[in-house]
Amino acid sequence: MRYFVLGAGSWGCTIAQMLKENGHEVLLWAHSEEHAQLLNTRKKMPHLPDVNLDVSVTSDISVGRNFDVLVLAVPVQYIRGVLQKIDYDVHVVLNLSKGIEISTGKRVSEIVQEILGSEYAVLSGPSHAEEVALKLPTAVVVAGAMAPEFQKEFSNEYFRVYVHDDVVGIELAGALKNVIAIAAGIVDGLGGWDNAKAALVTRGLYEIAKFSIEFGANPLTFMGLAGIGDLVVTCGSKHSRNRRYGEMIAKGFDPIYLLEASKEIVEGAFTCKAVVENYGDRYDLPIIKEVYEVVYNKKSPIDSIKSLMTRSLKVEMEEVRRWLEKNLKN
Amino acid sequence: MRYFVLGAGSWGCTIAQMLKENGHEVLLWAHSEEHAQLLNTRKKMPHLPDVNLDVSVTSDISVGRNFDVLVLAVPVQYIRGVLQKIDYDVHVVLNLSKGIEISTGKRVSEIVQEILGSEYAVLSGPSHAEEVALKLPTAVVVAGAMAPEFQKEFSNEYFRVYVHDDVVGIELAGALKNVIAIAAGIVDGLGGWDNAKAALVTRGLYEIAKFSIEFGANPLTFMGLAGIGDLVVTCGSKHSRNRRYGEMIAKGFDPIYLLEASKEIVEGAFTCKAVVENYGDRYDLPIIKEVYEVVYNKKSPIDSIKSLMTRSLKVEMEEVRRWLEKNLKN
Repeated sequence: MRYFVLGAGSWGCTIAQMLKENGHEVLLWAHSEEHAQLLNTRKKMPHLPDVNLDVSVTSDISVGRNFDVLVLAVPVQYIRGVLQKIDYDVHVVLNLSKGIEISTGKRVSEIVQEILGSEYAVLSGPSHAEEVALKLPTAVVVAGAMAPEFQKEFSNEYFRVYVHDDVVGIELAGALKNVIAIAAGIVDGLGGWDNAKAALVTRGLYEIAKFSIEFGANPLTFMGLAGIGDLVVTCGSKHSRNRRYGEMIAKGFDPIYLLEASKEIVEGAFTCKAVVENYGDRYDLPIIKEVYEVVYNKKSPIDSIKSLMTRSLKVEMEEVRRWLEKNLKN
Repeated sequence: MRYFVLGAGSWGCTIAQMLKENGHEVLLWAHSEEHAQLLNTRKKMPHLPDVNLDVSVTSDISVGRNFDVLVLAVPVQYIRGVLQKIDYDVHVVLNLSKGIEISTGKRVSEIVQEILGSEYAVLSGPSHAEEVALKLPTAVVVAGAMAPEFQKEFSNEYFRVYVHDDVVGIELAGALKNVIAIAAGIVDGLGGWDNAKAALVTRGLYEIAKFSIEFGANPLTFMGLAGIGDLVVTCGSKHSRNRRYGEMIAKGFDPIYLLEASKEIVEGAFTCKAVVENYGDRYDLPIIKEVYEVVYNKKSPIDSIKSLMTRSLKVEMEEVRRWLEKNLKN
């Protein structure tokens, strides 16, 4: 198939280059002519100056009409604006972006449905662009429209794609793990307490699962690559900018200025805002709410960790267990 | 209650000291008079020379008859021999050790039942002794006999204990995560590939769950502190000796000499042997079997990782899903 990849950041460029090397026709779209020209001239990955980028880059979104698949690799808060520029029919969107829209609380599938009305699939899992670009072993899942076709066209000897059936669970797991990663980064920054961080990751996974099943997700999704797999890599990796953002906050940097200072989007800070401001009054989200307090209300990270340690972990997985009992066999 | 703690390594000493500070009567037992005398003279934790140990240490196991609870913190391969020295009735054993007996394939609860016939409980979770000794935040679970009493007597402001109901799941999760940690260490040693390691941890959790449900464990246990919590800390922490053992193998050290060179027991290497040699012919255990091949049959770590990357991850969680469908609501 022919792929038009929207977004020429690390992940968009990495996936575009991989698809090209897999033998597909690919064109990248960058949000500015300046950025497109820079990539076309240098022919290198944005953050990996030693890795070639052999895919052409355009800033003209109208040429996308000639492609079969629109791949979304745009920061979630900009997706609506980008999609509104498209004045042609799009058959299928494959989304790679992880987050929730602040102004509406919507998932990417909902934004796509509202603006384009296209078919939709999502690809997610533990997949730092820096490693995929270097062809290091990576495994992800894809769910939604044409998932088996995407599995076939994306897979190669270092990138393994598994078909899944839970679009909502994968979208929410991908979005919310970035918030938990900020909390994990805070623990790292406060002292690198491994026991506390493991407890936080465990409770974080549970919090994600509990929230997501309210929107129709299957809790088993959170035991897989898009769930615990992505959470582990995001909370533990040296590459994770959400984790690093939390670490810097714990070291005393101002959360808001830090967001503005960051060259790359810290999606977890926006997802956190989207979740708390749209759903916070109706759902029990202790970790996500503490991250919100630290980022947006200047709560001290150490007070926040204390709040969590004194309130979390009452009963292990009560709601998830209840969901399973109710829904399986129905 | 009065606690007799068998085993004066890092974890036994840490828990003994914590119980004493929590206000309970505690006595430690060391396997040799020399080790007991050393600890009684230096009054410091074995691996933390700055942390006080105010608990008396004996090498006379017969004095245990005066205590209410026998706490087991002995390497699993030595537990049978130690318990055979006890010639008095033991009301309840609280086990802290994680592993499976090589000669029999038995869990600790089975060994205790066979030799002492006592009541049994197990405490587990992400809890590196080095951090608990420094009073850093830690959360664990306890299951089995008198679990609510143990929860009350062990908990304090930095050590939170949650009651659980799945003794078998907690025992197997605690034992098997050490094997997965060796595999994770191998990935670290080969190059620190975060995507691959996250995939391995995800598949490792699934492999543990799939094996354990055959013995009556509840798969939800593996989403909790004793499951993913302990797995994350063991695969990621600088303190984990199982992870470090894998890392050293990847760096070219001989696995068997390395085992003999280690001052501390690398329990995962023994658990791996116990599982493969007792159950390997009947169960699908790809990661655990690869670790076995690397440790005991000189398979190259890079070949082993390649084998895993080309065979694992076919269908996400098929058996666990099937188990849930069959067992819930029954």
